[in-house]
Amino acid sequence: MAAIAAAVDRHFDALLPVPDDARADLYRCMRHAAIGGGKRLRPLLVAAAADLHGVDREASERVGTAIEAIHVYSLIHDDLPAMDDDDLRRGKPTAHKAYGEATAILAGDCLHALAFEWLADADVHPDPFVRAELVAALARASGPAGMAGGQAMDLAAAATPFDLTGITRLQQMKTGALIAVSVEAGAILGHVPPEGRTGLRGYAHDLGLAFQIADDLLDAEGDEDAAGKRLRKDADARKATFLSLLGPERARAQCRMLTEQAVEHLHAYGEEADLLRAIAAYVVERDR
Amino acid sequence: MAAIAAAVDRHFDALLPVPDDARADLYRCMRHAAIGGGKRLRPLLVAAAADLHGVDREASERVGTAIEAIHVYSLIHDDLPAMDDDDLRRGKPTAHKAYGEATAILAGDCLHALAFEWLADADVHPDPFVRAELVAALARASGPAGMAGGQAMDLAAAATPFDLTGITRLQQMKTGALIAVSVEAGAILGHVPPEGRTGLRGYAHDLGLAFQIADDLLDAEGDEDAAGKRLRKDADARKATFLSLLGPERARAQCRMLTEQAVEHLHAYGEEADLLRAIAAYVVERDR
Repeated sequence: MAAIAAAVDRHFDALLPVPDDARADLYRCMRHAAIGGGKRLRPLLVAAAADLHGVDREASERVGTAIEAIHVYSLIHDDLPAMDDDDLRRGKPTAHKAYGEATAILAGDCLHALAFEWLADADVHPDPFVRAELVAALARASGPAGMAGGQAMDLAAAATPFDLTGITRLQQMKTGALIAVSVEAGAILGHVPPEGRTGLRGYAHDLGLAFQIADDLLDAEGDEDAAGKRLRKDADARKATFLSLLGPERARAQCRMLTEQAVEHLHAYGEEADLLRAIAAYVVERDR
Repeated sequence: MAAIAAAVDRHFDALLPVPDDARADLYRCMRHAAIGGGKRLRPLLVAAAADLHGVDREASERVGTAIEAIHVYSLIHDDLPAMDDDDLRRGKPTAHKAYGEATAILAGDCLHALAFEWLADADVHPDPFVRAELVAALARASGPAGMAGGQAMDLAAAATPFDLTGITRLQQMKTGALIAVSVEAGAILGHVPPEGRTGLRGYAHDLGLAFQIADDLLDAEGDEDAAGKRLRKDADARKATFLSLLGPERARAQCRMLTEQAVEHLHAYGEEADLLRAIAAYVVERDR
């Protein structure tokens, strides 16, 4: 994790040089939100899934950085006063607190565009079919059928009562889609055809749900200093979550069951999938 | 223009069906901003440039719709209270006035992601190299080195005094980059290699600047009902613009000179470039 986190920071640092013009604050804001901190779970998943198929680490790090750029842009926009109105993220002031709302909105938009610019770059992969497939998969996962659509549902969740099926769908879109596309990207880079991705897709699906339940538990029981952000937001907003619907005991059991199931999906792989298995174990145990 | 505008509306309508779930308002907001009204200059440029090289109209319309989606997302975000704080756009309430700020931010983000999803789709072009090149070009044109970077400079323009060189660079990024990539996309679809695009690039460069000067003149002298949006914003913000730096007479002359220059760049083409020439004439004469 530390090696991938350092690589992602290095890539962001190289890709976001502060220009000597009126856009300096825009770039500083992107760097503030993108560099340092964060679990870098998505780049780690790209690298772990790509490793299975002998993909060059430089390539999987670049793709991981592009997916992380989408994740970071979504955090910047979700933290805005009109959305979740948060002041603290990764132990630092949120982007709009540090640079103002207008710059934060634009910094999010820029990271969004840059993610696709980086993915479409020939340095990522010499085969344009791979690049086009990566772009299509990431765009689908981050748009209205994925992450942003899930966030729209989440905004409605305070007003509309969601049941367990509804919450599952919401979370599969809001956080699950980007986790799934991270694993999928490793397979795309490894030239694995769609029919060969069933195990990896099952793993990513269950991992994504386990991750979200762990997130709900952390929100309710975690330490704000360790998390580096405001917690107890779900209870304050009286939102239906896995936790509010299942209760802490069943939620914890469900999270453990899902990670076991995630690991079972990897049965066709040997020790080359141990990193993916370790990630599943981390997801239940993490404190941030 | 009417045919392309109808085609763009038809594509948006087909690509943005309102789902029967908690995302209904998100989709309604995208449709509100994307469908109906607008000059559709960018899709028109894609089609006109693609026509030169015998590209199928269905393909150029799809690419034009994707570029227009980027344009529409930028209008939604630029209109937000934290940015230009506008209530009226294309004669209708702005997206955040109609659907609230949170939904408007997400609708912009969704159109942004969808633009790349549509471009990367195999239906746009069977050659993945073409699709990857379209994505890379549009991402570059809309990110910090293009449209969004220009908008960041524009926000700084009220505080920092820009000279003519500075304003030219700002406008080449803010509006010029998306106009240029529209023409470029026609060439990419037509398999024209970069060294064969010099004339088209010269045309797009001069057209983009002429378009912006015409926009400044409309802002100062135009009719708000015809424009369908608030005008006199530049003067109110005391921003340096082409108009404030050149004065109305020289600005008008410069706009005419640039469109003539734009047309001269097309000298290698015969009557197959008449639509591009007509667009240049329209840009100086338009009233909205």
